[in-house]
Amino acid sequence: MSEPFKIGLLGHGTVGAAFEELLSERAATIERVTGFRPEICGVLTTSRGDFAQIVADCDLIVELIGGIDPARDYVLEAMRQGKHVVTANKQLLSQHGEELWAAAREHGIQLRFEAAVGGVVPAVRVLQESLAAAHVDRIHGIVNGTTNFILTRMAESGAGYADALKEAQDLGYAEADPTDDVTGKDAAAKMAILARLAFGTPVALDQVQYEGIESLTTDDIEYAQELGLSLKLIGTAERVDGSLNVRVHPAFLYGGHPLASVNGPFNAVTIESDAITEITLSGPGAGGPQTASAVLGDVISAMIPPVSTPEPLDPLPIVEDHVSSFYLYLEVKDEPGVLAQVSQVLGVQKISVKSVVQKGMGERARLVMVLHPVLESRLFGAVELIASLDCVNARPRAIRVISEEFD
Amino acid sequence: MSEPFKIGLLGHGTVGAAFEELLSERAATIERVTGFRPEICGVLTTSRGDFAQIVADCDLIVELIGGIDPARDYVLEAMRQGKHVVTANKQLLSQHGEELWAAAREHGIQLRFEAAVGGVVPAVRVLQESLAAAHVDRIHGIVNGTTNFILTRMAESGAGYADALKEAQDLGYAEADPTDDVTGKDAAAKMAILARLAFGTPVALDQVQYEGIESLTTDDIEYAQELGLSLKLIGTAERVDGSLNVRVHPAFLYGGHPLASVNGPFNAVTIESDAITEITLSGPGAGGPQTASAVLGDVISAMIPPVSTPEPLDPLPIVEDHVSSFYLYLEVKDEPGVLAQVSQVLGVQKISVKSVVQKGMGERARLVMVLHPVLESRLFGAVELIASLDCVNARPRAIRVISEEFD
Repeated sequence: MSEPFKIGLLGHGTVGAAFEELLSERAATIERVTGFRPEICGVLTTSRGDFAQIVADCDLIVELIGGIDPARDYVLEAMRQGKHVVTANKQLLSQHGEELWAAAREHGIQLRFEAAVGGVVPAVRVLQESLAAAHVDRIHGIVNGTTNFILTRMAESGAGYADALKEAQDLGYAEADPTDDVTGKDAAAKMAILARLAFGTPVALDQVQYEGIESLTTDDIEYAQELGLSLKLIGTAERVDGSLNVRVHPAFLYGGHPLASVNGPFNAVTIESDAITEITLSGPGAGGPQTASAVLGDVISAMIPPVSTPEPLDPLPIVEDHVSSFYLYLEVKDEPGVLAQVSQVLGVQKISVKSVVQKGMGERARLVMVLHPVLESRLFGAVELIASLDCVNARPRAIRVISEEFD
Repeated sequence: MSEPFKIGLLGHGTVGAAFEELLSERAATIERVTGFRPEICGVLTTSRGDFAQIVADCDLIVELIGGIDPARDYVLEAMRQGKHVVTANKQLLSQHGEELWAAAREHGIQLRFEAAVGGVVPAVRVLQESLAAAHVDRIHGIVNGTTNFILTRMAESGAGYADALKEAQDLGYAEADPTDDVTGKDAAAKMAILARLAFGTPVALDQVQYEGIESLTTDDIEYAQELGLSLKLIGTAERVDGSLNVRVHPAFLYGGHPLASVNGPFNAVTIESDAITEITLSGPGAGGPQTASAVLGDVISAMIPPVSTPEPLDPLPIVEDHVSSFYLYLEVKDEPGVLAQVSQVLGVQKISVKSVVQKGMGERARLVMVLHPVLESRLFGAVELIASLDCVNARPRAIRVISEEFD
């Protein structure tokens, strides 16, 4: 009989239970692949288990508690005792990643976290292994399944934001308090982790600009469909003139973009680099069995060989302003000269217009424009000026557009 | 200064040259990530280099010669001498994989081959690592960039097969002799390798049924577009009642299928398993820099830790007959009772019709049907009977349809 490989399980919610079940179901295959017999040596929940005992007994800790306290202390203590760590905890990694990676290097153990970013999508492994030495130029990601489900439903059924959110909650794709998801904060934490891996640059959560989907309307989505665009909550991490910019915001994608057809609760990540052009990885963003599968992949890798997260590599400076293409939605007075006034403001700011659609009449007159790429600060300046025009009735809405050719 | 890690390069064509360039460009990063300084210790071509010397000097061989002889002898000898091997050679792996994997296990070295399947798409790594113990149900792949480019051009421009092939050759996406690509043989070799990894079952090349794209017409593609389908050359490996079926053939995909939007010279692989639902990986299928990047990812992994290909795991029996949904294209006489005769044949074979379109008149009368899933042998039986009907003018064309709901 093979030697046992002992796994201490911290947390036993949906993912923990799914992991335990999957591990027992696949135990014989794992033994065949790794040469070790996997075994849960202890489970810690708020009502049972003793952390000190579990960590002393195990070869590896699976941390599925979530949040910072006590997960951080537990993970650090496990590493101090020379135990490998597999975690699905994006808060912990995005806020204390450097401390944890340094501890992993110091103690010579493996810290793996595929399930913390993008569910079952193997973005972490591909960045750390296939592309370990690649010069990555940009990552685009749909890394939050809740918001992607909501936007997909709005596009498919014409439902408003509130109704689509309700549907997501009823189906278990959104939590009772969806704030972290719909504001983009969850996606921002995941993009901070991916950016660290792809660009060797530590990224603090407050260095990631983020906007959510709460103020998007079905109008935006309908006009976009007419223009051949689909609306997604997109995380971006990219090199800009030797700096790094990391952000999350709604953006329109042209039909040919590899993320444009990623629908429902799915996640996807596109990694661009000169040498490879681009790789796209997609799959379900969450769900107990899916997350458990990502955790199990990490556990099996830890049972075989060491991979280390190298120290930060010539970290890039992080910038906030950058160039984007925009869609601009204006509710305007139905009178002559409106387009001229708006165009003049854009012209002064050196923003050029790619296409314009005029819609409706009277109270419902609308001007919808797609603009060529422009520095965001300049666009937002123009939006302020346009908002102050007498012929504009409501706050303009500006949404980024991601195309294949630029941005 | 770090210890050197010596790489012997066998073959110096497009990929070999691109690999050497990429390695030198990324050397500092590789040293940082792995702790070793990568160094080409020798290059073997038909006109220079000495194999015995190179293999004696190196820590790892990169085999980019292609074909069976002398690549097989070189790879086996390198392993015998305890050297790691990275190869992009799909012929070698699909025909002699078991021998090579056994040698790798025996000598305790790493044999890596990401670039042999799907170019830069990390299918091998994801199957061997992320999903090492997963119970995979099915793989669908677009694993030949040449044919995907040709089919994309036929769909986009309405060009015929011959013109689209010519265009692919002019752009360097197809070789002067495209036989292996357009007949599906290249894709069959890649599917044999993927099936081995996903199902732990050795698959000989002659156990993979394959059909090519040479007889497809723009008519097929146009009707398909009306039905919301796109036509791809699809490789499939799937469990069928405890057996394994591996095949390559043209197939229609419904718009929502993750492979439907993979266009041009791109490759993509969808891996389905209960636990994960599905993961899709896509990227450029070939090209010097892309293949070189996949090779480099493997070299870096070999510089860090050991991964082994386990022995075959409870191999599945391999079956050839299986259930598919079909599109059926008939050139028929423009007279009453044609649909009734065709329907009767289908009914006798217990094949049910999902949708029918009647097109054209007189000489150009056509009957296009989409059929519900049926055992292929039964469908081909029905096609023979239909072909023999007086009201049918030409050989019927049957093309598989892959939907989201079934098959």
